Order: sequence, then C-alpha cells, then structure tokens
Amino acid sequence: MSYIRYSYEQLKTFCCDAFEKFGFTKDEAESITDVLLLSDVYGIESHGMQRLVRYHKGIEKGLIKVDAKPEIVFETTVSAVIDGHDGMGQLISIEAMKTAIKKAKKSGMAVVSVRNSNHFGIAGYYAKMACDEGLVGFAMTNSEAIMVPTYSRLAMLGSNPIAISMPAEPYPFFFDSSTTVVTRGKLEIYNKLSKPLPDGWALDENGKPCTDASRVLKNIVGKNGGGIVPLGSDTELLGGHKGYGYGMLCEIFCSIFSGGLTSNHTHIGGKGGTCHGFMAIDPAVFGDAEGMKERFSVFLQELRDAPKAEGAERIYTHGEKEILASADRMKNGIDVNINTVAEMKDLCEYLNMDSVKYLGDVDFSAAKQSSYK
Amino acid sequence: MSYIRYSYEQLKTFCCDAFEKFGFTKDEAESITDVLLLSDVYGIESHGMQRLVRYHKGIEKGLIKVDAKPEIVFETTVSAVIDGHDGMGQLISIEAMKTAIKKAKKSGMAVVSVRNSNHFGIAGYYAKMACDEGLVGFAMTNSEAIMVPTYSRLAMLGSNPIAISMPAEPYPFFFDSSTTVVTRGKLEIYNKLSKPLPDGWALDENGKPCTDASRVLKNIVGKNGGGIVPLGSDTELLGGHKGYGYGMLCEIFCSIFSGGLTSNHTHIGGKGGTCHGFMAIDPAVFGDAEGMKERFSVFLQELRDAPKAEGAERIYTHGEKEILASADRMKNGIDVNINTVAEMKDLCEYLNMDSVKYLGDVDFSAAKQSSYK
Repeated sequence: MSYIRYSYEQLKTFCCDAFEKFGFTKDEAESITDVLLLSDVYGIESHGMQRLVRYHKGIEKGLIKVDAKPEIVFETTVSAVIDGHDGMGQLISIEAMKTAIKKAKKSGMAVVSVRNSNHFGIAGYYAKMACDEGLVGFAMTNSEAIMVPTYSRLAMLGSNPIAISMPAEPYPFFFDSSTTVVTRGKLEIYNKLSKPLPDGWALDENGKPCTDASRVLKNIVGKNGGGIVPLGSDTELLGGHKGYGYGMLCEIFCSIFSGGLTSNHTHIGGKGGTCHGFMAIDPAVFGDAEGMKERFSVFLQELRDAPKAEGAERIYTHGEKEILASADRMKNGIDVNINTVAEMKDLCEYLNMDSVKYLGDVDFSAAKQSSYK
Repeated sequence: MSYIRYSYEQLKTFCCDAFEKFGFTKDEAESITDVLLLSDVYGIESHGMQRLVRYHKGIEKGLIKVDAKPEIVFETTVSAVIDGHDGMGQLISIEAMKTAIKKAKKSGMAVVSVRNSNHFGIAGYYAKMACDEGLVGFAMTNSEAIMVPTYSRLAMLGSNPIAISMPAEPYPFFFDSSTTVVTRGKLEIYNKLSKPLPDGWALDENGKPCTDASRVLKNIVGKNGGGIVPLGSDTELLGGHKGYGYGMLCEIFCSIFSGGLTSNHTHIGGKGGTCHGFMAIDPAVFGDAEGMKERFSVFLQELRDAPKAEGAERIYTHGEKEILASADRMKNGIDVNINTVAEMKDLCEYLNMDSVKYLGDVDFSAAKQSSYK
C-alpha cells in the first residue's frame, strides 16, 4: 500500500475549502475539519480523511442537510434533548457537548441526548471537549446497524462507540472504542488494502464467520444479514453478550433518551436518523478536583509501570498512543493512503477545486478504483 | 457434580440466622440475605451462597467490621462520597444507592461514590433498586486485582463489573457483567467442579494462557502475577484494550471519584478497601418517561424477534435469563452444589447452628474438601 504524506495545514486547507464548497460557513467548515483531522492526527485513520466520501454522499443524497440547525426540544438543569434536524453530525455534536459542559459546570453533571443527526466522526473528540474544560466527558453514538447481537444473524445495533476522557498528567485518560470487536471503518480499510479480515471480526449473511471485508460491507449496506461481532466474540463463552450489553448502554443514551431512531431503524428509506449521547461530570462534585487528578495520574503511571507480559514492549494507558501519534504527525505530517487520496482528488473535481494545488501531482497508478466511480 | 435443592425460604432462614449470629441486626441480616439470594435466584451461582465463606473469612480477619456504619463525607445535590468505614458491602451499598435514588428523584440524576467498603455481592442488585423506582440505575465496584491489563502480566484491576438496569415491559433491561472475560466467582466454580478452564479466560504467573483454575486463584491471592483476561482477550486484535478500558471506567466511578483505593491497592496488608460507584438517572429529565419505556420495550422485543443464527434457539435481551431463572427457582427451589453445602455446614458448626435443622441430613461423600479446612 502506498501512502502520500501531507502536513496538517495542507489537509486542513483542503478540508475547510471542500466543506465551504458544500455550502457550510467558514466557521462550520473549520469545526467539521477540526473533528475529522483530530482522528487522522490521533492515528485513527478509519475516521478521518477516509470518511470524506461518506459525508459527500450523505450531502448529495440529502441525508445531511447543510443548512439545518440543532434545536433544544426539552431541557432541565441537568439535561437536554436536541433535535439535529438531519444536519451535519459534527456541528450538532459540538453544540450538544457545549450544552452538556455548560450545564455540568452549573449543576455538577449533565446528559444531552441527540436525535436526527448524522455520523459525527470520532466520539472521542466530544469527550475530549469536556476533558479540556476539566470535566469527565462521555460521548456515544449509534449508527447504521452493523453489530449482530449474540445468537442473532442480523445486524441490529450500530458500532455504538463509547468514549470517555478524564483529566490526568502528563496526558489525559482518553478511551474511545466501538462496542463491536472493530469498527466498520476498519473493515473499509481492509477492503481498500484488499486484505482478508482477521478471524473473529465478522459474520456473513448466514451468521457464519467471514473474512471477506467487501462481502460483509455490502451485506451491511444491503441489510442482507451478517455484520460485525460484538466485543467479546459471537458466543457467550468469551463474553459476546457483554459487548452487546455495552452496545445497549450506548443505545439508551442515544436513541432511547432522545426519542430518536434505534440503530436498526436508521439509514432506511432515504432517512439517516443517527442519535448521540453526551455526558459531562464536574469532578468537584466529589470534593477536591485537583487532588483527584493527581491520584488518577498516579494510578495511570502505576499501570504503565506494571510488569510487562513476556515479549511486550510497553503497557499503554488509554489515550497514550493518540498523544504519541499526535506529536509525531503534527511535526512530521500525516500519511494518507493512496486510495483515500484518489477519493480526495475526485472530490476536488466534483467541487471544482484544483486537485494539484491541494494534493500535489500524485501518481495514482497504485490506487484501486475510487469509491466515487 | 451433585446438587442439593433448597427452597428460597430455607436458604433465607439459614442466611438470616447466620448473619445475625455474626452480630448483624435482624434488619441488616435480612438486607444482606436479600442481596445474596437474588444472585442465586437469578442463576448467578458464583455470587450467592457460594460466596458465604469469603464473607465469613472477611469478618473473621477483621476486614469486614460488623458494627461499622456508612458516613457521607461530601455531597452536593447531584452527588455524594460515602466512607464505608470497612463495613459490610451490601449494607453500605444499599444506603449508597438509596442516596443516589433520592437525589436523582429531586435533581434529575446523581452519582454516589463509595470508599472503604467490602465485596457487595452482585452489582445488578443495586442497579435494580433504581429500576424498581422507575429510574435508570448503574452500579459498579472495584475488587481485589484480578484483571491483567493488555501487555501486562500482573493483575492491576478488579473484575470491575458494571451493571445497568432500565424499566421496560414485560421485564426490565438488566445488564450485569464483569469487565473481565469472566468473574473470579466463575473460576471458583470451575475449581469446585475440578474442571479445566476454557481457553481464553486466564493467564498464569508468567502471563501465559492457563486453564488451571486452582493455580490462577492461588496466584491472585498471592499476588504472584497472572489472573483473568479483560473482556475482548489478552490482545488488541480482538479488543482486549476495550475490556481494560471499561475496567477503567469502573475504577473512575469507584476509587477515583471516592478518593479510595484503586484495585491494585485493595486487599493488601490486612486492609480491604473495596470501592463502589452508583448512578441513577430519572428518565423524566428527557421528557415523557412512560413513552420512553414503551419505545424501549418495543426495541427490546425487536431484538428478541430478530432472525436467529443457525442453530440458535433464542435471542435474549439482558435480564431475560434472570427473570426466567427467578420464576423457576422461586417455584421449584434452588440447586446448591454439594461443596457449597459443605461450606454452609461448616459455617453452622462455627456459629453453633444446628446444620441438620437448616440444611437437612446431607450425604457429603461427593463433596471435595471444604474451603474451611
């Protein structure tokens, strides 16, 4: 697989200009870009530039309404329900988390649940927003159904990620993960790389183990059965019902609290309907927040310093890899795989942007057919 | 393995009388019994009668102080920190969840974090308390370190269960599971049954896969290394870092919010120090609670009615198995394995209770050596 390296600023310019061309304001385009690029900077390749094509398709099909503004339809001092009116997921979610943070700062904690939104990028971005303000942040989203519940053969829940971030030194705790074994984005990457999936990730339309990424992805879109396995495997022996349970936790905070669509009803008949859930907790409601941060930092260091497994080089705490990747990529640039660059070039053509100006004079001979064609 | 069947009332009488003999009041003994027996009634054999010996040892060693009363040391309208003063985990936790429920009913939601407690039985009991009051309930606990974090070879986190319960018809959502692949209680049962552990559950003192329950349990107590694998396996490929992450979520709500001991520091040098976390959310803070319950019930039914995997008989939603087990056991009695009955007999002798009166005239020839001897 060949990669092209771009600086953060290059990708930011491309991305901001593209979203402005789609009709978003400059501020909006910058907000969306900030979410997408944090993913690439953190090394979560599945949720950054490589997702552009899906946002484009969403806007083109009318699933994502560029002019929509989120509306608070119910609220208390500790909660809000927001109707996203089918707007851009990132913009709705930034507003929702800002609301949760504001309420948590005043009332100690708050939950904001969102309906009628769209894909919001990485959940961790919003958990981090709260953490950056000294709070404990939680962010979740449902999605098009891809998780096959234990003993079923039809995807009924989304990848349903849960992200949690909490202040600590020298870097915060930052946990962001799907409640499936892996995300759909990971399957998309394996598909782009034409690599077979590892065992234990996915099921075919009959509910049997399957390592063909293309087949699984097509089945998900076609709602033909099969999909991705819950965290813990497709059996109870190794705890698959637990991943399914965390998927349900996500669904409760997103679709159930908000009165929106559960994953199995989103993305049907020209409707999106993605739902999100956000929570912020001020650590000061438990006493001395600074002391808590210090104790938490000590615990994280104890974990990193614990005896390593034979052959292991390092024990990570959650978020450490992202911090390391970020330091490297901001300095040395971000590698974007050639197929994703091909999609970015096609997007330039679609939006009448000069692709050579934004992306350079790239040799695309190593690229697979673009997802656009 | 041979089992002896007892009625709920028989076990309740035995258990209440035993805890009164330990020095608890009648009310306290009944509360403790109620928690323990819900576990047996729900079919969670690992956390009911078979745990009596550990409570006994805890009281004998002074880890559990019979006379201790929980104390609120910090609180706001949405939170409390409780110091359990090394009392009985069930009694502290019932008070803590009552506090969370009271605050949530007034303020919309609340988190109560507890330090210096002891093993509290099944987390689900306390989540159910909130659910029985129409709220969404969450309960967590840390424990003696048994979970080996990804790339480590030393247990640093507890089984760290997370329980969630939410009202629904015809039965509530009730999710209660360790963030390890399995609980220590499951290993204790395999040990009692002299059965090898399934692959993928545990690691030996060198961090290598191990199916010898006795060896793993001894290593946990001796803090010799090894332990139980996080949900998702001991590698990142199948998401072991995610189980480790949920274990951290539990730790944040329990030891970090409360200022208590993290799992790796509990049960060292004659100190217990278990911490718990509880949260209650009133669904009315998102609007019409009854409508929400109806919509949630429809979703749960859709999950149960989804197409089944080949060879699967039934798709469960979380808590359904427990409801079915409960109906059966309250009517037909509860099977207690002969080794646990042997421990109950030894407890009778220790407490000067007439074992034949409580347990019947049992033939113990099929029992292994009791854990007491």
